[in-house]
Amino acid sequence: MSESIKAGVLGATGAVGQRFIQALENHPWFEVTSLAASERSAGKTYGKAANWRLESNIPDNVRDMEVVPVDPKKVDADVVFSALPSDYAKTVEAEFAKEGFAVASNASAFRTAEDVPLVVPEVNADHLGLIDVQQDNRGWDGYIVTNPNCSTIIMVPTLKPLMQFGLEAVQVATMQAVSGAGYNGVSSMAILDNIVPYIGGEEEKMETEPLKLLGEFDGSEITFADIDISASCNRVPVMDGHTESIWAKMADKPSPEQVKEAFLNFKPDLGDLPTEPEEVIIVREEADRPQPRLDRNMGNGMSVSVGRIREGIRYTAMGHNTIRGAAGASVLNAELLHKMGKL
Amino acid sequence: MSESIKAGVLGATGAVGQRFIQALENHPWFEVTSLAASERSAGKTYGKAANWRLESNIPDNVRDMEVVPVDPKKVDADVVFSALPSDYAKTVEAEFAKEGFAVASNASAFRTAEDVPLVVPEVNADHLGLIDVQQDNRGWDGYIVTNPNCSTIIMVPTLKPLMQFGLEAVQVATMQAVSGAGYNGVSSMAILDNIVPYIGGEEEKMETEPLKLLGEFDGSEITFADIDISASCNRVPVMDGHTESIWAKMADKPSPEQVKEAFLNFKPDLGDLPTEPEEVIIVREEADRPQPRLDRNMGNGMSVSVGRIREGIRYTAMGHNTIRGAAGASVLNAELLHKMGKL
Amino acid sequence: MSESIKAGVLGATGAVGQRFIQALENHPWFEVTSLAASERSAGKTYGKAANWRLESNIPDNVRDMEVVPVDPKKVDADVVFSALPSDYAKTVEAEFAKEGFAVASNASAFRTAEDVPLVVPEVNADHLGLIDVQQDNRGWDGYIVTNPNCSTIIMVPTLKPLMQFGLEAVQVATMQAVSGAGYNGVSSMAILDNIVPYIGGEEEKMETEPLKLLGEFDGSEITFADIDISASCNRVPVMDGHTESIWAKMADKPSPEQVKEAFLNFKPDLGDLPTEPEEVIIVREEADRPQPRLDRNMGNGMSVSVGRIREGIRYTAMGHNTIRGAAGASVLNAELLHKMGKL
Amino acid sequence: MSESIKAGVLGATGAVGQRFIQALENHPWFEVTSLAASERSAGKTYGKAANWRLESNIPDNVRDMEVVPVDPKKVDADVVFSALPSDYAKTVEAEFAKEGFAVASNASAFRTAEDVPLVVPEVNADHLGLIDVQQDNRGWDGYIVTNPNCSTIIMVPTLKPLMQFGLEAVQVATMQAVSGAGYNGVSSMAILDNIVPYIGGEEEKMETEPLKLLGEFDGSEITFADIDISASCNRVPVMDGHTESIWAKMADKPSPEQVKEAFLNFKPDLGDLPTEPEEVIIVREEADRPQPRLDRNMGNGMSVSVGRIREGIRYTAMGHNTIRGAAGASVLNAELLHKMGKL
Repeated sequence: MSESIKAGVLGATGAVGQRFIQALENHPWFEVTSLAASERSAGKTYGKAANWRLESNIPDNVRDMEVVPVDPKKVDADVVFSALPSDYAKTVEAEFAKEGFAVASNASAFRTAEDVPLVVPEVNADHLGLIDVQQDNRGWDGYIVTNPNCSTIIMVPTLKPLMQFGLEAVQVATMQAVSGAGYNGVSSMAILDNIVPYIGGEEEKMETEPLKLLGEFDGSEITFADIDISASCNRVPVMDGHTESIWAKMADKPSPEQVKEAFLNFKPDLGDLPTEPEEVIIVREEADRPQPRLDRNMGNGMSVSVGRIREGIRYTAMGHNTIRGAAGASVLNAELLHKMGKL
Repeated sequence: MSESIKAGVLGATGAVGQRFIQALENHPWFEVTSLAASERSAGKTYGKAANWRLESNIPDNVRDMEVVPVDPKKVDADVVFSALPSDYAKTVEAEFAKEGFAVASNASAFRTAEDVPLVVPEVNADHLGLIDVQQDNRGWDGYIVTNPNCSTIIMVPTLKPLMQFGLEAVQVATMQAVSGAGYNGVSSMAILDNIVPYIGGEEEKMETEPLKLLGEFDGSEITFADIDISASCNRVPVMDGHTESIWAKMADKPSPEQVKEAFLNFKPDLGDLPTEPEEVIIVREEADRPQPRLDRNMGNGMSVSVGRIREGIRYTAMGHNTIRGAAGASVLNAELLHKMGKL
Repeated sequence: MSESIKAGVLGATGAVGQRFIQALENHPWFEVTSLAASERSAGKTYGKAANWRLESNIPDNVRDMEVVPVDPKKVDADVVFSALPSDYAKTVEAEFAKEGFAVASNASAFRTAEDVPLVVPEVNADHLGLIDVQQDNRGWDGYIVTNPNCSTIIMVPTLKPLMQFGLEAVQVATMQAVSGAGYNGVSSMAILDNIVPYIGGEEEKMETEPLKLLGEFDGSEITFADIDISASCNRVPVMDGHTESIWAKMADKPSPEQVKEAFLNFKPDLGDLPTEPEEVIIVREEADRPQPRLDRNMGNGMSVSVGRIREGIRYTAMGHNTIRGAAGASVLNAELLHKMGKL
Repeated sequence: MSESIKAGVLGATGAVGQRFIQALENHPWFEVTSLAASERSAGKTYGKAANWRLESNIPDNVRDMEVVPVDPKKVDADVVFSALPSDYAKTVEAEFAKEGFAVASNASAFRTAEDVPLVVPEVNADHLGLIDVQQDNRGWDGYIVTNPNCSTIIMVPTLKPLMQFGLEAVQVATMQAVSGAGYNGVSSMAILDNIVPYIGGEEEKMETEPLKLLGEFDGSEITFADIDISASCNRVPVMDGHTESIWAKMADKPSPEQVKEAFLNFKPDLGDLPTEPEEVIIVREEADRPQPRLDRNMGNGMSVSVGRIREGIRYTAMGHNTIRGAAGASVLNAELLHKMGKL
């Protein structure tokens, strides 16, 4: 490894924080140098502070690392990955950016800020140009880049290739995994043998974030896409993997076959980023795919699988919500930033 | 009990057959007099033949009853409730109707026949007038009455009150319980920690059956309703209770409040049938209801619960798929037939 | 209803509190007159304060009742049912007893106190004689009666009839439902597609409580039974119903058939208490029973089902952990107290 | 890869067959050259014949391979791995052995045959000496080697190091994953929100197979170990990973600490076989481990994890039932055979 960019994780002990550590293990460019978490955890080794719940052991290099407070003065890193709760992120991420850190955030705090890029590399890499606007506006040495909400990320790569057909309206019903709510987010009594047809704030995010992601950046600001999105979000007894039943209304009325071709031809060139999946969109031909248990780890959890493309246009999309939909998204953003020379 | 109508169950040992027996236990009008099943079961006592899987014991009156073959000559009943597989039902139900039996069928075999009523009592009781047409056409002494597919039944009572607003189009994504596929229909390896985004034939049923149910009967034939329905059907790891995210497009563009009022005012008068629920539609005000585990048994499993009525118009509907959606539906049909003097 | 004993519920909003309210709905002797809960809930109506999660609606009579603080001065009742956390119960239950209330407690706080009866009516009703000792000792006008831990209650009625064979040792591996930990006790991420082989404090309770329950009361104190009990407690993804694989070593080495007879002959005479099940122990003959989903509601949730009695002696026991194992146990104790003239 | 041993899979399309193919993908010694399955599948490509259900894609090299009948004349291989149903294996495996194939079988058909080795490499590698006896007895050019039942394999490596303390008796209650029964073995309606306290034939296997595995081979026959084993087997709603609550009675009455040391010191030297796990037994210190979801893939699914070693002696063991407990077990046996020059 010739390159070594120092990486910190903010909110390192939680479910997404653990996914960050997993994503950065053996990463060719980034090296974990700081793990920051709440006062309760600070001072302990990461192995003691975190209730590690992934199906792999804590990487050896972080187990004995001492957790530091979430404070720019205590964190030694070039880039920090933020898995902070949104209200807390609002002030803390700004402090880090001000102090010169590149902040790759999975929190929602800054997603809607006019001068903060909301990016999915395969969809709107050019929006990273907003970083200059942001630094001008705010006088920061560093900057904040965000990725969207997990249910948005699964859907947006499939909407992007539909823009060519004049995408007008989207209706989406989600079936979301419990890991999306964090380790203690969904009680077993709430979800065993059950569906909960509501996830606070989720529908609003799915209805607005794609408009920014699919919008146009003219060098100074984003003009939002004009698409009418209506979402119904449901929680289901699945560990990982959000499944979405999507209807897309397009002016050009493409056939299912044309939509399938558009998905297959969607091959954005990011320049071989380390965690970029070979296929952003995997098209399944089987009648009963994609399925979360079978398909969530495709492309190391970074691919979105689609299937059942039918008249309507209707289709099913599925992706790993805590990899593609959270930690992996921020890491891919940071890789892109490095490639572009901004990190 | 002054009345005693002799009732048979065809396909008595399966999952829906068991629900028929449960629904008829202690029924004020119907008395189970015949249990018919495949040759493999015939001759055994019901207790031996059936792998009883409900959360209550086999009713004492049927445990020791001998199972007979599915043959009009071997069945002693005024009405037979059919839980037969559809291909088999095609010939067998016709034989029973010819021999003078009233057949209340949960099978799909005759649902689309022009002269066979497809009925949900609260929605289109008047369609039972087709029985006369059917008997004229076919020269049968008995007749066949059908109820729709389980996922259709959960949705249709909520569409009926929307007809007044000029219902034009419906999009529905379902999250269906495993019991809908029968006892061996869904392997645990297929569905634990998983979603299967496909149920064979289900979408076609949801897209066509409501058009007949919501159609107009002029005394001789049904004119189908003109509604564009698009369904995406998913299987989820839930035991009982189908949940549906529904979008309804209406010409009059009613507000969510008007839709809610329409649901609350939907109180069809069936004349106090024994298993008719107090409320066909239960409107939940909570942000996170209805939920299958908590609401499936409302109205003894015969109510449909709705909630989350929002702009769109969007809402969530949920009902018990093997009670309201199957056995209970056929029994309610038979009760209505008796009330109308046809049984 | 000629009798009407005023009943309060302490800790009324939690999972066991809800089961108390359900158990007392339409009870022939007890009428709910007070619902007490934490300061956060006090002052609200019960409908607002409780996150009701049972598969039935909140009884009408309690929905609009105002929740009061857990304070003897604010509670109007003859008997209070306690679903309080154990540490809190330690002081609060004593205050209620001192003020003259009969306290029927599901908490563990006083179970091991020498002068407090730990009772399962079918097992050791005579231990209620300890109430006199307790009142003498402590100078209380009221008293406290406790029931054991849920996993103990499921096992103990099956051990009682084995005492006649010289019961020496018991080994038990449990598979316990998530509801035993309370509504937020087990995260879905902890238990979906998983087993947790540990429940804090549970094994100790299973190893000690039966010794008191099966002990002898001589009018002044309990002599504990001399049985060596070893427990391994596991949490499983089941909503309600604890299943236990039990080995019982007995001096007389009875055959499986003799053990089965002992279970069938175990018919304690409690004098027709309202919630007493027809059969305390239900013996299943099927090779694959009891099962929690199918058998937990037997006897309205108050029966323990056993099966698979084999050489060893080995067998499987299963019962409803929040009915028989918690709220229902306390209510049955209170019914017995009333029958004995102590309430 | 200097070595290339041709490998066939018998019963290649089922759940264990798929695990064989997964285990052999990229194997340094074995190359899949033949896939054999029932007449229904023969003639189709494997991709068409198999309903592939693993969380990884079908390896490219086998997707287009034509499935052949289970017939020694049609199979081109040096070693065949058998995932056949036991009754069928009885005749078929003998035919293959007679024709000169090395048969590494996961079926139970020959496990109890006096001259057929039942082997777990870390436990009784020396029993492979029985192959010579077998070939002498039967006049076969090839031979059959078997591995035990999945629930036995998880337990036996933990019993082996306890033999030094004079192991006398074992009681074990299992909580077994649904994959152990094959793809259609357990219906979702049977196991969602449920436990099934019975698995046909499983307890007998657990009670007898360890006696052969832990027995002594004197060059001509096995003297069975003298241990009294009593098993209670339960099915739980877990996808993969059998969890076992074990009690072990030993003459020397070792302390939990001594048992833990014995586990840690159990490091059989197999000579670096390719799929041999770094640690056969992983000792977990956490109070709530091992857990199937978190620990089943340790050692690439080939390690057994133990924890909660307490007075009793009691402990919990857990391992992957279709890798360590099935396909991986047979592959490890074949690797050992190659190392010993028998393949």
